[in-house]
Amino acid sequence: MTAYDDQNVFAKILRGEIPCFEVFRDDRSLAFLDIMPRAPGHTLVIPRALARGILDIAEDDLAAVARTAKRIAIAAMKAFDAEGIILQQFSEPASGQVVLHLHMHVMPVRAGVDLLPAQTRKEDMAVLADHAKRMIAALGG
Amino acid sequence: MTAYDDQNVFAKILRGEIPCFEVFRDDRSLAFLDIMPRAPGHTLVIPRALARGILDIAEDDLAAVARTAKRIAIAAMKAFDAEGIILQQFSEPASGQVVLHLHMHVMPVRAGVDLLPAQTRKEDMAVLADHAKRMIAALGG
Repeated sequence: MTAYDDQNVFAKILRGEIPCFEVFRDDRSLAFLDIMPRAPGHTLVIPRALARGILDIAEDDLAAVARTAKRIAIAAMKAFDAEGIILQQFSEPASGQVVLHLHMHVMPVRAGVDLLPAQTRKEDMAVLADHAKRMIAALGG
Repeated sequence: MTAYDDQNVFAKILRGEIPCFEVFRDDRSLAFLDIMPRAPGHTLVIPRALARGILDIAEDDLAAVARTAKRIAIAAMKAFDAEGIILQQFSEPASGQVVLHLHMHVMPVRAGVDLLPAQTRKEDMAVLADHAKRMIAALGG
């Protein structure tokens, strides 16, 4: 496996070099909205430690990502009146992983509403800001 | 959310009422081959505790499922000469969840080889037995 490259976009987000629509963080994980959501509320959970994917992440960091993904899932059900949740995580380019820092997709879904194909379109910033606000409220409530 | 129904097929596997191609178990989790694999080596990781999905699973059980999924991912890379891993987990029928006991799909992939659509065909039992043997060897080695 190729070594971790700290110039990936999520490493830059972690260093505060570029912004994100953050909705939650704890000691080991960070959650923010996907700016090309496949469904409203589509959130990414990443470890704050540098890990490329499932093959190299430390166990405690992986447990933290899973714990935060559960928290996000419960909040997204509430914030987006969802009926289900899809988790996805891609490791290595052959799987379709584009940003090579581990990220768990948490996607709230409704019956009969298909996800958009991956990376279809960048969502409007005002919409994302509103969705982040809804997620933060649901996480706090 | 609907209550857990202990007549689902994975609850029956956990109780030993029906067989599976088991490849790994520990105190909190069990891993076995999907009999309708979307790729060779497609494995399911489930909690031994009764949980329907991401919304109701206890944190320690979720951490165990994640830890086992990592272990399976590493073994599957080796056993199936894979180039990447896709994790997927569906919660609630609206998401496409069919068996209502939490299961994490761990799918080894190769560049340029698409996953089969979900539930396309039941794999030959002899092929699954061989794949289980390869996984068990990779997990032990």
